[in-house]
Order: sequence, then C-alpha cells, then structure tokens
Amino acid sequence: MQFDFSDGLFKLNGKPFYMNSGEFHYFRVPQAEWKKRMKLFKEMGGNTISTYIPWLIHEPAEGQFDFDSPQLNLRHFLDCAAEMDLAVIVRPGPYQYSELIYDGLPPWLCMKYPEILARDRHGRVMHYSAVSYLHEKFIEKVSAYFDRVCPIIAGYSAQKNGPVIMVQPDNELGGVHLWRGDFDCNRETMGFGCDSGRFAVYLRQRFGSVEQLNRRYGCSHTTFGEFGPPPDTTCVSPSALLQQRDYADFYWHCAAEYLKLLIELMENRGVVGPFCHNSANPAMNCCFYEVKKQLGNRMLLGSDHYYTLDQRWPQNNPTPQYAIRCFISLEQLRLMDNPPCVLEFPYGSLSDWPPITAEDVEACAMMHLGFGMRGHNGYIFTGGMNVPGTGSTTDMYDYNAPVSADGETRPTYYALQRFAGYLNAHPEIIESQADSDFRILMPWNLAYADNKWSGVVCPGTVGAAQAWNSFVTGLVTSAFAAGLMPEMVNPESDEWVNCIDKPLVLWNNGCVDQLQQQKLVHFMENGGRLLCLPVIPKYDENFEKCTVLADYLEGATAGKAVSPSDRMVRLNIAGIKNVYCNNEFYPAENIPSGAEIIGQNEFSGETVGWYKNGFMFLGLNWCHGKNEHAAMIAKLLERLGMQRRIVSNDSWIITVLRKHAAGTTLFAMNLSSSTRTVTLQIRPDGTGEFYPPEIIEIPAMTVVTKNFITRGDRLC
Amino acid sequence: MQFDFSDGLFKLNGKPFYMNSGEFHYFRVPQAEWKKRMKLFKEMGGNTISTYIPWLIHEPAEGQFDFDSPQLNLRHFLDCAAEMDLAVIVRPGPYQYSELIYDGLPPWLCMKYPEILARDRHGRVMHYSAVSYLHEKFIEKVSAYFDRVCPIIAGYSAQKNGPVIMVQPDNELGGVHLWRGDFDCNRETMGFGCDSGRFAVYLRQRFGSVEQLNRRYGCSHTTFGEFGPPPDTTCVSPSALLQQRDYADFYWHCAAEYLKLLIELMENRGVVGPFCHNSANPAMNCCFYEVKKQLGNRMLLGSDHYYTLDQRWPQNNPTPQYAIRCFISLEQLRLMDNPPCVLEFPYGSLSDWPPITAEDVEACAMMHLGFGMRGHNGYIFTGGMNVPGTGSTTDMYDYNAPVSADGETRPTYYALQRFAGYLNAHPEIIESQADSDFRILMPWNLAYADNKWSGVVCPGTVGAAQAWNSFVTGLVTSAFAAGLMPEMVNPESDEWVNCIDKPLVLWNNGCVDQLQQQKLVHFMENGGRLLCLPVIPKYDENFEKCTVLADYLEGATAGKAVSPSDRMVRLNIAGIKNVYCNNEFYPAENIPSGAEIIGQNEFSGETVGWYKNGFMFLGLNWCHGKNEHAAMIAKLLERLGMQRRIVSNDSWIITVLRKHAAGTTLFAMNLSSSTRTVTLQIRPDGTGEFYPPEIIEIPAMTVVTKNFITRGDRLC
Repeated sequence: MQFDFSDGLFKLNGKPFYMNSGEFHYFRVPQAEWKKRMKLFKEMGGNTISTYIPWLIHEPAEGQFDFDSPQLNLRHFLDCAAEMDLAVIVRPGPYQYSELIYDGLPPWLCMKYPEILARDRHGRVMHYSAVSYLHEKFIEKVSAYFDRVCPIIAGYSAQKNGPVIMVQPDNELGGVHLWRGDFDCNRETMGFGCDSGRFAVYLRQRFGSVEQLNRRYGCSHTTFGEFGPPPDTTCVSPSALLQQRDYADFYWHCAAEYLKLLIELMENRGVVGPFCHNSANPAMNCCFYEVKKQLGNRMLLGSDHYYTLDQRWPQNNPTPQYAIRCFISLEQLRLMDNPPCVLEFPYGSLSDWPPITAEDVEACAMMHLGFGMRGHNGYIFTGGMNVPGTGSTTDMYDYNAPVSADGETRPTYYALQRFAGYLNAHPEIIESQADSDFRILMPWNLAYADNKWSGVVCPGTVGAAQAWNSFVTGLVTSAFAAGLMPEMVNPESDEWVNCIDKPLVLWNNGCVDQLQQQKLVHFMENGGRLLCLPVIPKYDENFEKCTVLADYLEGATAGKAVSPSDRMVRLNIAGIKNVYCNNEFYPAENIPSGAEIIGQNEFSGETVGWYKNGFMFLGLNWCHGKNEHAAMIAKLLERLGMQRRIVSNDSWIITVLRKHAAGTTLFAMNLSSSTRTVTLQIRPDGTGEFYPPEIIEIPAMTVVTKNFITRGDRLC
Repeated sequence: MQFDFSDGLFKLNGKPFYMNSGEFHYFRVPQAEWKKRMKLFKEMGGNTISTYIPWLIHEPAEGQFDFDSPQLNLRHFLDCAAEMDLAVIVRPGPYQYSELIYDGLPPWLCMKYPEILARDRHGRVMHYSAVSYLHEKFIEKVSAYFDRVCPIIAGYSAQKNGPVIMVQPDNELGGVHLWRGDFDCNRETMGFGCDSGRFAVYLRQRFGSVEQLNRRYGCSHTTFGEFGPPPDTTCVSPSALLQQRDYADFYWHCAAEYLKLLIELMENRGVVGPFCHNSANPAMNCCFYEVKKQLGNRMLLGSDHYYTLDQRWPQNNPTPQYAIRCFISLEQLRLMDNPPCVLEFPYGSLSDWPPITAEDVEACAMMHLGFGMRGHNGYIFTGGMNVPGTGSTTDMYDYNAPVSADGETRPTYYALQRFAGYLNAHPEIIESQADSDFRILMPWNLAYADNKWSGVVCPGTVGAAQAWNSFVTGLVTSAFAAGLMPEMVNPESDEWVNCIDKPLVLWNNGCVDQLQQQKLVHFMENGGRLLCLPVIPKYDENFEKCTVLADYLEGATAGKAVSPSDRMVRLNIAGIKNVYCNNEFYPAENIPSGAEIIGQNEFSGETVGWYKNGFMFLGLNWCHGKNEHAAMIAKLLERLGMQRRIVSNDSWIITVLRKHAAGTTLFAMNLSSSTRTVTLQIRPDGTGEFYPPEIIEIPAMTVVTKNFITRGDRLC
C-alpha cells in the first residue's frame, strides 16, 4: 500500500482516493469487539481508521509500560486493521485530549516534574496538565515514551506493507495553553534573562539589534536576554500591541519547533511519514502556515470542524454561518498545499443535549464535499468504557457515535453510509474543482489577528480582527447569498498575477506587504480587474508606510471610518439603493481624475465607491443581512467583468458548482430547519446562455446534488 | 368593548380571550391598503393591531404637526380599525425605534436641544438620539407633542366605545442607553453636585446618612450632592461594585419615574389606560419589577422575544435553548401579575439572512402557547415604504412580514393562520394551567445581575450573573431534558410557604434576604421539602451576614468552589455515576448530624450532596450537557417526593402538560432540524398509573399537541 498526498489529493497506490476515516479507540473498545466493529465501519463505507495512543494508559507509572494487556495491545489492533484491509492513522501524542484526564499525559509526569508546566506571562502555572512543549525534561520523558511506542508504529508503516498511512504528532497544538488563557511563558523553556535563551535568539534573528527592538517596544534594554514576556493584553499602546503580536509569533515559532522535533524523534525511532496535524478549529489554521511551508508534503495539515459540543456553541446544527467558516477553512488548507481534510469531523458530541442527528451529519458531510473536502476523520466512529480512572467526563465514552459504546448502530451510521454511497456512485467528485465566479486574495494576516491574543490595531488602519470578521460575515457571506462562488488565492503565490480571466478581490485592513502590493500593480498592468475594499493599503505588514498600490492609483486613499451612529447614512451603490450600512463606511479621500463614482452616501454626498481602468474601490465594511448586500456585490463584480454561473432566488440556499471529468455537479445546500423551494438558473463556466430554470425542493437540513453533462448547449 | 386583564388573563367584556395582535404601521402602509390588509389580518385570525405613532413624522418641524396627510391620518386609521372590528394598541412614544432615524425622535429635537442628550459616566454624549429621559426640556417637548396626539387617542379609547384597548408609553425602555454602552449620567437630569438633585434625593431616601454611604463606598463626602456617577466597570473592589449596582438601581428607579410621568401626562390629556410596556428582551424583564408593582393592573408588562434579527444572533431558529429562556420570561411576567404576553413576537426580521420561515414562526408560537402565553403582538404584520428620509435601514420597510410591503401574503401568513385555527379549535387552552412537577423560587436578584452592568460579586458567594447563567443552562434545562415541568413561584409572595404538595427548589448564590430565609424555615416547618443549590445562603441581599436558614440546618454551609481544573473530580450523585462537572462544585462543610450523604467526589471523598428531614443540599453548578444531569435532578426531586407526570426517552423534545376544563393537553416540541420519534409515558397530575406509552413522530421544527380526557383511568 503506497499512500501519499499531492496536487491537493490523497493517493493510494498512485490513484486519487477519498480518505474516509473514523476514530476508533482500541483502548476503549473491548478487544473482542475490534474486528466486529471494523467490519461495521467498512460496511458504512470507511477505508481508514484513526486512533490516539494514549501515553497515560501505556505508561501508567514512570518507566512501566504496557502494550500487551488485552485492550492495550496496539500491535494486535494494527494486525486486526491490516487483516480487515483498513488503513490507520495513529496519534501517539504526547497530548491526546480526548476527554482523558491530564489531557492524556501521565499524571505522574505532571506531578513529579512540576517544572515542566507552562506558565502564563505573570509566571503562574496555567493548568495542572498544560506543559511547556519544549521543556528539556518534558522532551526527555516524551523520548522515553517514544522509545517504546515508535518501534511498534514503525513496524506497521505502509511502506513496510503495514496499515499505518499517517502519524500525527501531538494534538490540536496550542489549545492546551490558549484555552487556559495565555501563551506559554515558562522561563526555562523560553530562556528569559539569558542572551542565548530561546526568546533572545528569536529576537536577534528577527530584529538584528537591541536598538531596533528598543525603538519598537519603547524599552531601553542592553541585551536581548532582558526582553521578557509580553505586557498584559489590556495594554493597548502601539508598542505594547507589537510586543504582544511578536510574542504570539514567537509562540507559534516554538510550536513549529516542537512539531518538527517530535517528527525528528519519531523518525529517529524508525517511524516514516507522512505526518499529519490537526488545527483545533478553522480560526487556528493560519497559525500553522509557517510550519506547513517548512515541512511541505512531509506533513498534512487538517482542521477540526465541530459545530456543537455543548449547548453554548454558536449553533446546534451545521448552519449556513458554520458552512461559510468551513468553506474558508478548506480553502486555507488547499492554499497551504494540502488536500482539504477535516481531521476531526463531527460524528458525535461530548453532549447529549444538543444531540447529533443523522440529518445534521449527512448534510454536514455533503456540504463539506461541495466545498472540496478530499477526506475526513469522523470523531468518533465508536467508543466504549474508559480505562478505569482515565476519563475526565464520564466513565462511558460513547460520544453519541454512529456505533454506540455498546456496539449498536445509530441513525447517524446510516446517514454516513449514504454519504459513502454517494461517493461510490460519483467518484468523479474526488478530483472535482470548484467552478468559481471570482477570486479573493486570502487575507492571512487578518485571519491570524482574529485569534484574540494578537488583535493588533495600528492607527490609521481597520482593526485586523474586526476586518477578518467582516471579511467572513460580510464579503464572503454576501457572495454566497448572491449565488456566487468565490475561490481563494494565496497572495504569496505568483500564479494569480497573470490570471486575469476573473475579477480579483483584495480585502484588506490598510496593511498589505510591499511585495503583494507590487504584484497587485503587475496584475492591474496585465489587464487584471481588482475590487479593493474596505480601504486602500497605506502600510506594510509592519505598519511602515507603504503606498505602492495607492501610488499606482494616483495617490488614492480611503478616509476615516464613519459609523451610522456618527451621522446619518444612506448608501446607494452600483444602482442598489439604500444598502444597509450595519458596520461602517470609509469615504474615498483622493479619487483619481476621471474615476466613475459608483457609490455615495446620499445624505452627505461622500463617495464610497469609484471605478477607473479595471480598479474598483468600495469603502464599505458590512455584515451580510439584506438581499441588497448580495445584489451590490454581484453588481460590482459584474461591472468588473464577472460572468456569473448561477442566478438563485433564495439567498439562504448555498450553491456550488463542481467541474469534473463527467461534467458539472451542482450542490444546493439547505442548512435550515425548513423545507425550501429554490429556483436556479445555471450556466457552467459562466459561458453561453443560462439553462432553463430549475425548481428544486430541498427538505430541511439537506444537501441535494444534480449532475449536468454539457453537450453543446444541451443540458442533461 | 370593555378590555382589561386580571387573574393572568386578557378579558374582553369580562370574558377571557387570546389577544392575537399584529403590528400594522399606518404611516408605512398606503392608506388605500389599510382596510384590505386589515381584512387579511382578520382572515389570518387576528383580533388586535398595534402601531407606533411616530413623533418625528407627526411633528417634522418644531410646532408643525401633521395628523391629516393621507398616510398620517391617525383618526382615519383608528376609524378603519373600528369599522373592521379590530382592537388597537397605540404606541405614541416618545421613542419608537422601529428602524426610524433618531430612534423615532424628531431630528430637530436632538439637534436644537443638545442639552437633553444622555451622557455616560465620563460625561460623553452617548449617541445623537439617546436622550436623558427625565430632562426637563425633553419632557416639555414631549408634553407639547402629547398635547396633540393624546386627544386623538383619548377619543378612540375602548371606554368610549373606540378601538384603543391599550396605550404604550415609550418603547423598550433603557435600551437607548444600555445598548449605547452606559447608564444615563446627564448632570442636569440627575442633579449631580446638588443636594436636592435627583441622585442625592435617591441616596438620602435609600441610605439615610452620608456617613453610611461613605462607609459603603469608601468615600469621605460631606453631602449627598457630592456623590456622582459610578466608577468604571473595570473597577472591581467591593465598594466600586456596590456603587455600580446602586447606580443601576437608581437608573431603573428613574426609568420607573419616567414611565409613571408619561402615563400621568397622557392621563392629564384624557387618555385612559390600561397602559402597557415592552421589556426589550427576557433578560430585562426583572428591571421592571418595581414599576410594575407600583402600577399594578394599570400597566401590562410584556416582553419582546426575538430569536434572530441578523446572522450574529445566538440562533437562527427557535431552538430549545431559546425556548427555555422564553419559558422563564413568561413565568417572570406571570409572577408579576401579568397575563404572560409577548409584545413583540417575531413575525419577521430586519434581515433577509437568516430568513424567517413558516415552520419557525408556527413552532415558535405553539411553543409559547405551551408555556402559557396569553397573547402576543407580532412584529410586524405588514409594512410599506418609509416616509421619505425617515428610515434608518432601507427605504422599503418590509421586515419579511407575513404580508409583504407590496401586500402579498407569504408562507408565514398561513403558518400564523394555522396557529389561530388551533386556538379557535381549542379555546380551553386560553385558561389552561401548567401541570407542573415541582416548584422553583424565581431568583430575581440573579436575573437582575445578569444584566452585565450590575454583576456584583460578593466574596464568599457565587457570582450572581454566573449563578443566573447556570440556573438557566443547568437547573432549568436539565429539568426539561428530564421531561419535568417546573413552575416558578415568587419569593416575595406568601403563598408558597404553605404549598407543600410538591418539592421546592432554592437556587441561590449565597445571598438571600432575611424575610425569604424566614419563609423557607416556615416552609420546612410546615413539612415542605426543599432542594437547595448550589450553595447555602450566608448573606442577605446587601451582603450582610444572614444565616437564618443555615441556623435551622444546624449551621450547614457550603465550601469554596472547586473546579475540575483545580483537581480531579468525579461526582456520583443520587446513584448516578460520574455526573459531568462542567462548571464547579461546592463541597459541603458543616453537615448536620445524621444527614444522609447523597453525593460525593469519588477521588477526594468530598460530600457534594446530603439530605435530612426534607432538606436536600446539592453543591453543584452545571451546564446541562449529559443525560446524567437530567437523571440526577429527577432522582433528587423524586427523593423529595416528586411524582413525575412524564417519562420521556428524548431529552431534546420539550414536553409540557396543560390542564384545563376539557382535560389535559400535551405539547411536545421538536425545535430541531431533524424529525424525531419520541416515546412518552404520561400520567396527568402525577397520580395513578402511567398511560400506555405513546410513540410520537414529530417533524423538524414542529410542536404537536395531544388532548387527554381523563375518565377514571381511561385515556381518550
């Protein structure tokens, strides 16, 4: 069995396949049940299983290992999987979480070696099981555990005709600190106070001189070693904010070092990759950008996409708002050269209330497929009793899984079977590509800032976290509400500069690095058409003045934010009257001569949009609410030459067209609690006439598909 | 037509009726359409319409009034309603909100008299249309407007055989300030710096002496006039917190004064009541407790119950979480001697995305009916074009109403028609009473603290806002998840002291006033059975030591909160193993001799629950998540003698039994996106054997009802 991933696809023996995985904890499921449940899993359509290998269970006392007791016999488990012709992903930690006590670390480790515990910026222990990843003592103990577990894994690798196709170091990296309130500031690990310490070395490499750093932070230190943890997040001076962001950067730099070190430790013990890691949620994907670039195809980055784990989550079901976040997440993973993959896909939940229903699970899976998901690992396929004393929630780890802790199939099982059935019947979907209407440059910096711990706001710019929020809830949501399909492009790539067949959107907060600004000028010079919003860049990513793009636009700028609570606002944009301004607008300041005015505040006459020579500015930052928002974005992009693929009469139905060898497939997603009847006009590739309108009735929480085979202008 | 409300019922000519009202803005709907749409409304089953009378439209320039232009002819509108035999609720302001500019105030008012604008605690203007309610100049201008509008209203009152049954002064009182970030601290209105100022007078009346107040706040003032606005909410010393809460009390005291003044101004101009007012949302109901007590049946207090107005709301649909908040809201209104009424019931939404669907509206209405709603006013029934220049969102005020701005009926129209049809077919529901399983003392003080501006935490108690949150998401939610129906009782009433037929629950944060503690002792002495959680009162409402109840319990106390992140926790309670502790627990400290231990932390042996002589303590503060939580609360209450009415196998289906002249009606609510099949065992009144199990399939987002006529032990 040869497994790899490239070109955005998982491949088995060189052939693209959909990685249909389910989490299966051998240490919870009775051994006598393993093969029976694996059979059930295969009958559900699965081809891969995934499991944690929990340190606390295999090394219950320091130096005492157990890989042989019936339910802890990892080798036997892997033998069973091989026998059942199932691929396996193993996740040997050190961390597991998985509702195990001490997040899966051995209690003796944290109790006996308290020096390894992570500390917050004030020096306080953050949690009894939150350790400092790179602490020498911790790594020493991890190594001893890896000495035992890695040889087992190595013996079962796919390269040796074993079932293990991927190995995941650690779990949801960063969560153990950030969910407990802070970045790790363990003095020993970070080496504060020492010029050769980890933090000092990082600062020296990044900033070169102490003087420059003193200027940046407003300090007067004499050595790099004197720089310590960042100030409180309540300090909001520009220098304090920069210190906070730099420390966040450093933290993720350390996380990358830790991930690479774990991989090295495994490889030194015979484990061959590829490796994988799961970002804890879509918002954290961007934090792994650097390490993923460094590791390339040695590591798959996936994301965990839960929609509810208890009643406090923002939704009970896979709602349209959740779908849009999933779309962005999968696009981020794709831009990072991964086959878009959800490494923890919700098959169950920690809670019984809200419940996980068959309809929800099936709609969720089909929605992800429509957005280009190439594989997933359902969390969890089946569970069982926790090893006594190791569960942190309840003894029975059932998780409302498709196969219960007792081995009974639940309605979600059959829902997932239908999903696999769809994939079997439509293998063309696996290699399909979105038939997009326009492109958007992924604003990585804004996504990064959305992680609360680094919400740097530079004077004269839009708050980065706020700008990310309106990117998601405004621009991208309005596009889907308009029946449009956006495609993300990576600003760091060079490809888009010459792709001028579709309009491109630059959503920015006023800070865009110089190289990207230069590329944007080239794009325009190439004949590209650009929509720039809600402001025009003035600074680079370090908040230094940078007006490469603005200079090309005859010095065009956006003015200060105006909120509807400041003064009366009524915006008319692109022929759409009274576009609801529910965040704020940015009146144009310097407008190039001869520019066409395309949007104004009716009360004040202020310009909020203009167009000249393929460039369009829209000074609006909104949260999608009204059909007018959708109509506006469609009109603006059409003014820039967009040929839309779909005209829909229902903004609540998300539509996607996917192109493939057999034609084009429509996904129409009703992620609500009511049946909806939608009328769609469709023209794949945005060429030719629209097909005759399709009237489709879609039951509540259902994704329907429809295949089009285009022969001339005939629709089949 | 004689209209009043008493005994928790709306009455027309002395007979109970369901007030089925819809918002109908004459100033937006073309005059030629009025009667046509009123006819549509009656055909939908409505009997009452409600309308704002917008000041900014009727007095466009100071002293220039217009009640005669075709679409502003209020008299003609009221004539039409009378002709169509519709009752009318009028809402003449001063405030309307209603997506009108300046929240419905005339722009000239705020521009010409900036001194009337509300100020935050730092003296800053809060918003260009947020005025200081009791500012003399504002009241003077209101009076001039009332001089014109009140005589019109007076001429159409029900007492004079007109259609006007209720008059609403102002709108969602408090919102205009609190949503803009602070309480009003306008110096002139509040009289800061002056010993006869409004604030000084309030403090003198409440605290008697400057010395006492100095002790309370840690100040050294010499006169009451020196006390000013409260410190920032970031100040969290006990004295700062008390200052903040006292100012909140003062603010609501002023709001009550304002409401009473508006009523007086109207009455002086011939308007006769009853009056009504709408709390902006369930969380704010408790802020109107004092004024409602003072006004009694002269004023109806209703609540506004939106579930979504844009994509940022916590839900897109009427979810179970929302339902539980609605239940508590309706119970609060009932305990304040109102017929539980939703004065703005969601018929539409400001946004097109998420949409308001027929299924959602119908399920929402039926859910409310199951919880005892006696009337509602749908916001809005129909709209139209805004008067030019007066709309703050879009020109067309359609609101996705059942009848569109163009006069077309939407699917929600037919959903509401079905709801009215149900009421027509089942008039017995109007006077029905919940067949409850147990009683809960409404923790008013915690509800009040949940309004963020007064989250006082006293050392040694549970944070009040946090305690409210776990009351809602823990205790009440677990009860419904267990198939139990709680009934709220008012701690201020005396009735419950002798009601010992059902167990009573005291949910408290450690602070319970002395009188209530005394009543609890009497209740116990009467043979009442009490479940007290998550702590045992130590203080009174002023954080003074008060241990009346604890003394009766041989000095029983609850210890400090223990969180699962502090140490290992596994709770076994009432025979339920491993009850998930997802907030914290409070180990018992002094346990009366001979008490039965009913709950322990398995790892530490700490006691979390005990029982003695009808009194039960449970030291757990949870968020409902697992079926174990529901099983625990059912077991504990059964131990206290509860005879449950319903055994359900689906915690996600909310069930209610309502008793009435014709028997008992079951409401089973599936507020999810999936069809569910539930098995219910039912025994009305908790007596006799359970009926044979009912298996009911309930489609997504549907409330089904079933009538039981009990003849002996026969089920019909």
